[in-house]
Amino acid sequence: MTLDAVLTRIDDDLPLALDRLMTFLRIPSISTDPAYAAECARAADWLAEDLRGIGFDAAPRTTPGHPMVMGKGGESGPRLLFYGHYDVQPVDPLDLWDRDPFDPAIEDTPKGKVIRARGACDDKGQLMTFVEACRAWKAVHGTLPARITMFFEGEEESGSPSLVPFLQENRTELDADIALICDTGLFGEDRPAIVTMLRGLLGEEVTVTGPSKDLHSGMFGGPAMNPIRALARAIAALHDDSGQVTVPGFYDGVPELPEAVAQQWRDLGFDAGQFLGEVGLSTPAGEADRSPLEMIWSRPTCEVNGIVGGYTGAGFKTVLPSRASAKISFRLVGDQDPLAIRESFRAMVRGMMPPDCSVEFSDHGASRASQMSIDDPAFEKARLALSDEWPKQAAFVGCGGSIPVAGHFKEILGLESMLIGFGKDDDAIHSPNEKYDLDSFHRGIRSWARILAALAD
Amino acid sequence: MTLDAVLTRIDDDLPLALDRLMTFLRIPSISTDPAYAAECARAADWLAEDLRGIGFDAAPRTTPGHPMVMGKGGESGPRLLFYGHYDVQPVDPLDLWDRDPFDPAIEDTPKGKVIRARGACDDKGQLMTFVEACRAWKAVHGTLPARITMFFEGEEESGSPSLVPFLQENRTELDADIALICDTGLFGEDRPAIVTMLRGLLGEEVTVTGPSKDLHSGMFGGPAMNPIRALARAIAALHDDSGQVTVPGFYDGVPELPEAVAQQWRDLGFDAGQFLGEVGLSTPAGEADRSPLEMIWSRPTCEVNGIVGGYTGAGFKTVLPSRASAKISFRLVGDQDPLAIRESFRAMVRGMMPPDCSVEFSDHGASRASQMSIDDPAFEKARLALSDEWPKQAAFVGCGGSIPVAGHFKEILGLESMLIGFGKDDDAIHSPNEKYDLDSFHRGIRSWARILAALAD
Repeated sequence: MTLDAVLTRIDDDLPLALDRLMTFLRIPSISTDPAYAAECARAADWLAEDLRGIGFDAAPRTTPGHPMVMGKGGESGPRLLFYGHYDVQPVDPLDLWDRDPFDPAIEDTPKGKVIRARGACDDKGQLMTFVEACRAWKAVHGTLPARITMFFEGEEESGSPSLVPFLQENRTELDADIALICDTGLFGEDRPAIVTMLRGLLGEEVTVTGPSKDLHSGMFGGPAMNPIRALARAIAALHDDSGQVTVPGFYDGVPELPEAVAQQWRDLGFDAGQFLGEVGLSTPAGEADRSPLEMIWSRPTCEVNGIVGGYTGAGFKTVLPSRASAKISFRLVGDQDPLAIRESFRAMVRGMMPPDCSVEFSDHGASRASQMSIDDPAFEKARLALSDEWPKQAAFVGCGGSIPVAGHFKEILGLESMLIGFGKDDDAIHSPNEKYDLDSFHRGIRSWARILAALAD
Repeated sequence: MTLDAVLTRIDDDLPLALDRLMTFLRIPSISTDPAYAAECARAADWLAEDLRGIGFDAAPRTTPGHPMVMGKGGESGPRLLFYGHYDVQPVDPLDLWDRDPFDPAIEDTPKGKVIRARGACDDKGQLMTFVEACRAWKAVHGTLPARITMFFEGEEESGSPSLVPFLQENRTELDADIALICDTGLFGEDRPAIVTMLRGLLGEEVTVTGPSKDLHSGMFGGPAMNPIRALARAIAALHDDSGQVTVPGFYDGVPELPEAVAQQWRDLGFDAGQFLGEVGLSTPAGEADRSPLEMIWSRPTCEVNGIVGGYTGAGFKTVLPSRASAKISFRLVGDQDPLAIRESFRAMVRGMMPPDCSVEFSDHGASRASQMSIDDPAFEKARLALSDEWPKQAAFVGCGGSIPVAGHFKEILGLESMLIGFGKDDDAIHSPNEKYDLDSFHRGIRSWARILAALAD
């Protein structure tokens, strides 16, 4: 049996696969911080070399930002475009990490062994599940079961500024029958999931300027407008008391969930109490009339991701600052138009500025929500293949996060994307002490081998 | 005439007085930075030695922090306690200075000669005006016109941790009829001022915690409460639309300004447009029914001095943070009770926290406002003496900043303080390129000679 030999090879090769992942994790490829540009290039080089070791024709490809990595392998079978990203999130606050984020280790935990490092799950560990499945297949059969284009990005955590131009310029080379994306999670502990709905993302940075320089709050407090106060008022006004976002027109294009989908989601037995309890919360904070799963998968939101102004060091300084700024993001669903919402948001904030405060905005990306067309039989084949590997049947689910690349693949390359990943809710991606379960890594590799076999069939 | 001879002596001695000040300014006595502890001790030694040279019985006095300097001189006349501080602010950002901050120089400017150095005004130049006045008096008359206790602190720029215990332990030695403090400014360019109202200061740090760790805003945005949102709502609620502070009971103990004082302030011809215009503002932002001068001198305020939460670096990070915090200060007037306001503020903020958000407070000081009792004839004597020296009549004024030593003198020693100084708005104290006008130094010395004569009369 072709598949069984590959699965055995995967099991036998796991220690070496882990060694390779550890090497990859040691590269601090933080894309958002220019100080780490050389490390991003090093991660791209490492990936390209690893792919060449499996026989791919692979190389880093220059962009105005961090490089892409492209690799071609396989002579026959379906044409698959596989996407992952080698860049990682920043690591601050560093003092909350129990170890150096870029000194990975296998740790024993009450729930099993985990790989601990920045990027262990998001997305180095995940993308390597697919690479390792290809390596095992090649080792057993001397060839691949499909014509595979590997496509790795290094700017996913910093707004992907080079992605759209790169896709447009390399349409032909990237052409395929379907795209595979490994950057999502299981549903719960052991149910594999294929994401068919993704929220869009609009990122905005707001900077409010009051006085032309920092002032002494004793000398000017009172008559001089404080930009922190103006910014706080604007932020406070973004939600009403029922948790709805107040930006005018924000809910235009937000669809109601079809009852069939709603029923399927109810059947998943999502435990909202446990979901919130694991992060120290107990009361759903969003729209009062929506369930938490609905909020995350199918409702739009507005969050403040960061705020800073004035003196923030130790002790106290009675400054009345010149400026204050906030990073604000919107998750979008259905047909919400990110550009229309950006304009409406900016107009609303401008309208709230008191005299003597000016506001500037900077753009941190705008992507629409994605809805996959699951009529393609590849979706059902993959669902069955995943169900063979895991304890529970695979499900079609939504996703609260935004994976804009799926929308770009659809719009620019005309491809549907299958989003399949093996992360868990407690992986702490984007947080201190990020981890990836060893079981996720191992079964993830096996899952891709099964999916390759099913798609090639 | 006893005074005329002293004034002549002051004029003749000015070059040597400047030499002494330059020597003093060359000592980098930055109190907040432990690396400069030996320099603070050196400044204290220099001062004590200089005082002994005028016949004072003077010595540095050890404290748990930087030394105090005490000196006693004069055999008869009123008992005066003179206060100044020999420590200075840090000098960063150093690259914004046009010269080494501790290599003082006399510079020609379009507005006249200035002494340029860290501490030139705050407070080495100011305190030396009094020392030089005593030196000239002693040189002319062989004795002093009053029984003078010199009292110099070396921790004023770093929170004065040793001051209250020192005052308590040395009550008898510090006993006097009135205190003189030289750490304030002229009103405008050429009107001398005696500060009779000082605002108090209450400092609070507020930390709001939502989830137990930083979350991914895509995975949790919606159901999970964002602490930045909770903090922004609390800050936005601290003022109403008319600019009044909304903390319950905040205005308890705030006196209305007596019409006579209000009229006197109106007569000062304060130019609010120019005051705000110099810092890029045009519209008074505080209580709608108060003039800017009234706001700064006699009305309480609430300002946010700093705020931070979530990701604040370059680029974007879709984090839903665990915590957000703000530093908030209140300037107090009249009989406002800082401790009652602290409790009311904390209760208000606690009451605004949504479910799943907790709030912690830390205390950054609480001092009441000071209101001098100007019934003591010394105030009117000093006002007339100052008016003789300067182009314009001296005024009794308020001060927006907080000078806690005046409150401590009142509470611990039972002394009223006369706050008289010769700084100007453009002296850049606490900033790069600090200066003190040569005219302020010269007329300041002459002013103190006149005041000594008037008080001894």
